[in-house]
Amino acid sequence: MAIMDINADLGEGFGVWELGDDLALLDVVTSANVACGFHAGDPLIMRRVCAASVERGVTIGAQVSYRDLAGFGRREMDVAPAELTAEILYQIAALDGIARAEGGRVAYVKPHGALYNRVVRDAGQAGAVADAVRAYDPSLPLLTLPGSAVHDAAHGLTVVAECFADRAYTPSGALVSRREPGAVIHDPDAVVQRAVRMAVDGTVAAVDGGEVALKARSMCVHGDTPGAVELARSVRSALSGAGVTLESFA
Amino acid sequence: MAIMDINADLGEGFGVWELGDDLALLDVVTSANVACGFHAGDPLIMRRVCAASVERGVTIGAQVSYRDLAGFGRREMDVAPAELTAEILYQIAALDGIARAEGGRVAYVKPHGALYNRVVRDAGQAGAVADAVRAYDPSLPLLTLPGSAVHDAAHGLTVVAECFADRAYTPSGALVSRREPGAVIHDPDAVVQRAVRMAVDGTVAAVDGGEVALKARSMCVHGDTPGAVELARSVRSALSGAGVTLESFA
Amino acid sequence: MAIMDINADLGEGFGVWELGDDLALLDVVTSANVACGFHAGDPLIMRRVCAASVERGVTIGAQVSYRDLAGFGRREMDVAPAELTAEILYQIAALDGIARAEGGRVAYVKPHGALYNRVVRDAGQAGAVADAVRAYDPSLPLLTLPGSAVHDAAHGLTVVAECFADRAYTPSGALVSRREPGAVIHDPDAVVQRAVRMAVDGTVAAVDGGEVALKARSMCVHGDTPGAVELARSVRSALSGAGVTLESFA
Amino acid sequence: MAIMDINADLGEGFGVWELGDDLALLDVVTSANVACGFHAGDPLIMRRVCAASVERGVTIGAQVSYRDLAGFGRREMDVAPAELTAEILYQIAALDGIARAEGGRVAYVKPHGALYNRVVRDAGQAGAVADAVRAYDPSLPLLTLPGSAVHDAAHGLTVVAECFADRAYTPSGALVSRREPGAVIHDPDAVVQRAVRMAVDGTVAAVDGGEVALKARSMCVHGDTPGAVELARSVRSALSGAGVTLESFA
Repeated sequence: MAIMDINADLGEGFGVWELGDDLALLDVVTSANVACGFHAGDPLIMRRVCAASVERGVTIGAQVSYRDLAGFGRREMDVAPAELTAEILYQIAALDGIARAEGGRVAYVKPHGALYNRVVRDAGQAGAVADAVRAYDPSLPLLTLPGSAVHDAAHGLTVVAECFADRAYTPSGALVSRREPGAVIHDPDAVVQRAVRMAVDGTVAAVDGGEVALKARSMCVHGDTPGAVELARSVRSALSGAGVTLESFA
Repeated sequence: MAIMDINADLGEGFGVWELGDDLALLDVVTSANVACGFHAGDPLIMRRVCAASVERGVTIGAQVSYRDLAGFGRREMDVAPAELTAEILYQIAALDGIARAEGGRVAYVKPHGALYNRVVRDAGQAGAVADAVRAYDPSLPLLTLPGSAVHDAAHGLTVVAECFADRAYTPSGALVSRREPGAVIHDPDAVVQRAVRMAVDGTVAAVDGGEVALKARSMCVHGDTPGAVELARSVRSALSGAGVTLESFA
Repeated sequence: MAIMDINADLGEGFGVWELGDDLALLDVVTSANVACGFHAGDPLIMRRVCAASVERGVTIGAQVSYRDLAGFGRREMDVAPAELTAEILYQIAALDGIARAEGGRVAYVKPHGALYNRVVRDAGQAGAVADAVRAYDPSLPLLTLPGSAVHDAAHGLTVVAECFADRAYTPSGALVSRREPGAVIHDPDAVVQRAVRMAVDGTVAAVDGGEVALKARSMCVHGDTPGAVELARSVRSALSGAGVTLESFA
Repeated sequence: MAIMDINADLGEGFGVWELGDDLALLDVVTSANVACGFHAGDPLIMRRVCAASVERGVTIGAQVSYRDLAGFGRREMDVAPAELTAEILYQIAALDGIARAEGGRVAYVKPHGALYNRVVRDAGQAGAVADAVRAYDPSLPLLTLPGSAVHDAAHGLTVVAECFADRAYTPSGALVSRREPGAVIHDPDAVVQRAVRMAVDGTVAAVDGGEVALKARSMCVHGDTPGAVELARSVRSALSGAGVTLESFA
């Protein structure tokens, strides 16, 4: 019987600025990647999102990032490993304290944006992120791509693979780069069908038409573009309809 | 038999910038008020100061502040209570996570700079700070001035009073404002004598020559001016020589 | 014959975060108060808003603020005058350089948020703002409230008074505090009628029903709430229809 | 007859934090690379350094950087060119306005830290920096390394090459990477001798013992390590003694 987690980025406003519809997304996901103040999020937003997550039984994860509010954590930065470890540790701890004050806790860690992409291929930064998780709580899973350098750096940490129903895959099971045409799938029906196939069969159609196996336990959906929440709702509803158990991995 | 804690602000550098001599001060104090990144301190500095504190058996406290790196937390800010509570909670949690990764923990909370002064007289902000401590861990003591509005806001929290051997006191036991002449006592011998009297007799000579009772369990020393660490060492040594037990309150 | 400027706050996004509809507002106003990066705005947004203002013939003003992105410049801060002067000077200069690169220039200065309110009653901070304008270019007008302490601090600078069609006025011509009920007028028709009366007759109905004279050369409109741009368009259109010449004061 | 400029980084404190001895260095240099607030420096520090530079007849340059206070601008960042151009423009303009308020002006631009290194080899970021200078004032020289990609991006801008008396050079005239042993020359006498040879003969001994021609019009000295100011003074004094005219290039 198929089981899948649905995760999305939440709490990505800052001060007066809002981004996405957190409450609507919280009714779709089973896991909330909550921004920790380094690329987005501030303590009050973090507190509100944690409270709303606890109320809905949504699992809370720390969405950790480079220190880069101006760039929303989307620019790669050459942060030295010891500093990166300390910064990740700081973010996890800050969110966990806030989550606990609301009756929840941080149950996993997911790097954001440029850090997410960097740790897939950079052993130094992947190790720095793993060190932070190990220092804080080695039982916390790390959410990343299959094949990421995080797997090699984990040394005993739990690593959970995620998939994207709206992204094209290469024949080897990697994401097609966003710089390539067709990297993002915009047709909602196609996205929903791919989501079901990923969850039920554990496969996806690659760009060459072949079938690729995907061993993902979590599916990432988005909420920050027009129509995104509606599409996320359709994905959830289709997965449920196909008999997939929607449940956090943590 | 007299007992006294010695506390000082530590970890107040940021990035490449240093402030004071953390390691020297750690050999003097029994409690380290560690900056949490809002007025000073960054995750790497926090980690190093926590590690050094644990190594020396120094108790770690969260030195929480307004979000104001440019002003070092010294400018009063009209932060709304709910936001201030969330910001304090964030800081305590971040430092506690880092301290625990180094084998210690946050054992008390002390507001910094303008926030320290503001909560003495502002019930709203005092309540916001107390709410944060209560939300994180109601067993954590709050370090403040005797007579502070924090006492009224505590509602069951432990409040610990501190004293300053280098500050002049009014006949009612309040600090003379820094805007007044003579507010700070610069003569090292006088400071040392006052420290001993505060610890042994629980009194201080007020500006009018009279004697004031001081019920302080902690004495604040400084490390960020020339000669400050040397003076702090003299204070510690004189207290020890006078038979005062030097021990954290937490 | 009546003449009036219409000003609004623009460029108040930051990084990925947007606020209000800058392009729509630029078709309404004759003066754009462009955020300079201290409470909102970043260099790229500033450049785009300046380019769009120049293209439409809208006058550019520096909307200067406390250094407070997290609080959007809405929290009063006890910034020392010399530091405040340097910060205001920095902001004016940064925006002016960007405006000139786009073929325009900074033509006036308007304090934002908490600084706007503070300089109305605080001679020290009003003087600090005036000193910055004087140091950069003493020909730049300062846009503020009638009766503000800025007038006393101006010493030869041009001070321009502004009015608000959607705010209630006391019998003495001051704004009713936002903490009072009825401080903000929500009925669009009432706002439009008040706008015309302010521009044509130079008067407004006070909260006691009496008539107050208002000598304002600029009218402030908003764009950051639902319906705000539509209301601003109606105000502009009604002023034009009433024969008011819409023209910048700078 | 030989002519040489001596430049150094100045104004690199932030808030309460100090770095280096600005006033001592100002008596050594002919050009001050003044930090503009993105990696270091704040408006008040900028104002004081500009005032002191004008008083001593030292030429002011804008030391522009990535937006990275926490990393002191030393971490490479993948900033998009349009955003980088706007950020550089903002920094030049802010400093120029402050310099003019003190009776001076920005006379050249020098990238700092990781940006300095990046533009040597990254055509996109080099072009972004050149675009900012061109947009602000195309008569401003850019100070960089010989052979930098900035030369190719300049398109009519003046590019000035600088040399380092305390750095080892490869046989092709490039700096030996700091990761290599011997990259930095610590012997003060050797540094002084190299400085004179660079200025008088336009050559330097490469790491292979051969002689390399260096066509530098400016020599960079440092002030942020123990003994650095003293060494800078010795360099200046030796250059003067060797008949070199010490004069800004701008």
